[in-house]
Amino acid sequence: MTLARISEDELVSKLRAIVDATRTTRVRLGIGDDAAMWQPSRSHRSAITTDALVEGVHFTRETMAPAEIGWRTAVASLSDLAAMGARPVLATIALGVSPQSGVEELLEIYRGIAQCAAAACLAIVGGDVTRSPVLSLTMTAVGEVRPAHAKTRSGGRSGNVVAVTGDLGAARAGLDVARGAVSLGDAELERGALLAFRRPSARVREGRWLAASASVRAMMDCSDGLSTDIARLCEASGVGAHLDAVPIAPSALAAARALNEDALAYALCGGEEYELIVAIERRAFSHLASRFAARFGRRLHGIGALRAQRGVVLSRDGGEVPVPRTGWDHFKG
Amino acid sequence: MTLARISEDELVSKLRAIVDATRTTRVRLGIGDDAAMWQPSRSHRSAITTDALVEGVHFTRETMAPAEIGWRTAVASLSDLAAMGARPVLATIALGVSPQSGVEELLEIYRGIAQCAAAACLAIVGGDVTRSPVLSLTMTAVGEVRPAHAKTRSGGRSGNVVAVTGDLGAARAGLDVARGAVSLGDAELERGALLAFRRPSARVREGRWLAASASVRAMMDCSDGLSTDIARLCEASGVGAHLDAVPIAPSALAAARALNEDALAYALCGGEEYELIVAIERRAFSHLASRFAARFGRRLHGIGALRAQRGVVLSRDGGEVPVPRTGWDHFKG
Repeated sequence: MTLARISEDELVSKLRAIVDATRTTRVRLGIGDDAAMWQPSRSHRSAITTDALVEGVHFTRETMAPAEIGWRTAVASLSDLAAMGARPVLATIALGVSPQSGVEELLEIYRGIAQCAAAACLAIVGGDVTRSPVLSLTMTAVGEVRPAHAKTRSGGRSGNVVAVTGDLGAARAGLDVARGAVSLGDAELERGALLAFRRPSARVREGRWLAASASVRAMMDCSDGLSTDIARLCEASGVGAHLDAVPIAPSALAAARALNEDALAYALCGGEEYELIVAIERRAFSHLASRFAARFGRRLHGIGALRAQRGVVLSRDGGEVPVPRTGWDHFKG
Repeated sequence: MTLARISEDELVSKLRAIVDATRTTRVRLGIGDDAAMWQPSRSHRSAITTDALVEGVHFTRETMAPAEIGWRTAVASLSDLAAMGARPVLATIALGVSPQSGVEELLEIYRGIAQCAAAACLAIVGGDVTRSPVLSLTMTAVGEVRPAHAKTRSGGRSGNVVAVTGDLGAARAGLDVARGAVSLGDAELERGALLAFRRPSARVREGRWLAASASVRAMMDCSDGLSTDIARLCEASGVGAHLDAVPIAPSALAAARALNEDALAYALCGGEEYELIVAIERRAFSHLASRFAARFGRRLHGIGALRAQRGVVLSRDGGEVPVPRTGWDHFKG
């Protein structure tokens, strides 16, 4: 059987069955979350996460400048740490390059990595450089979190409010603009969309702040698209979700309108966005959301609720429609 | 300028200049050693190392079975931890695969990783799976060491004995045998050479034991070949080296004889071997070497000495010949 015939999640579950045999008592959280965790000392946990970016799969040189490719490399790892509530500490980079690559282009990529990392106090401490037929960048980042603050995907409970830390779909609108596939008819909107695509932000401060609240039961980032990632959170938590208010970015609304597409698809299946999905105890949500808005100057959007009935559904046209897991899958994409 | 025109070490030094700006006070050792180190708590240091294996660069499916590719992935990281004197804790793996890859082959690769990791108590805790035009495996491993025991490449001093934890060249002889390029005329010798190539050992226990000695001033592994790696240790320590007794593996002697090649080249430039290079205070060497032999049942081979005069030279035919850095370089290789 080839990989094309199974899903990424199925493959990961088979690989997990093999490597779970190596698990030791030091490990507090293994494969299956945004990051793994271990306990180096009593006072804190460390989180570790690995993300690879491959040319032609995650980026092309046509739509992204070298520094933007670097930025994206760092933001993916930072976002995984944010989802655990962890403070970034350090990272390594494995660089795969062809001998025909330009040295200046690689240095620009590293400048993009360093800019994004430095802003989050993530030190780049090492790595490996190898020949490779395509450009590839693999970052592994380590962060720290107090044991009581560490959040996972699996703590969600029926009745929890599901929230996201920002509106969704702007990164996909930005890709449309970068490809020249659409004009949004508004310079400000186009600039915002391109920024969301080229220099997205990881919600590191927001993640640490949310993690400090006992009312926050589960967190993950939605880098593979809300529809895929909410399904993963639900599966890990043993629940389903009912969504009724997915916030769509204005640039996604404009792009969908111009292309005669469904704007909700931008928000549900966009991917390459780094907002956090958060499950919060219902009684605490509105107070937490006001404190969040006061602290970060942005909304914590309630988008629905977790419920006992499995599967993810969406209110639409007065009824409930199932949300397919149509996010990014690396073998089908 | 393209990468083909600069060396791997030159590129790393340019990249290092960029990312060193991100360094924080938590980081105790950055780019330029076998692993980087940070201090998560007062009582110990953590070490982190990343190694990538790319099909066609580091391995081919013709000469290595899937489980052996997995084994090699894990041993490279374990060896880097061994060189710091660190105890392995956990690792992540980034897997790049084409959709045409066979699922069973990947599971075999992971079984090889898990076997090698489990033997060293290294837990595999996560990773990332992406599409890629060639098979690639990137492992990042974390280990722990007491602050007083941590060793680097830079502690070597003029007068120190240079030692290695085993004889050299067997892995390259094993590659010759695997390729069908040579017959060693002795089944036992061929089995040993193939094992050195396919299932090499990382010197984890030896590294931790050596690191506990204050007489050990510097350590690194010689995975890129003794000639390259001794030059790196010398450069980091600000010294040169004079080698007079490089131990050549019997299988390397046999392969070189059969192919009419220089056996010393097998030992100096072989690479993909995981013995440790150790700089030891002269007065302590012979006692340490006897204790090492008693403990591990293998010799700690004194191969020469560090000296103030820069460059690496070798005693040969009654004179000194310079040792070129002819080990593996990823852009020239």
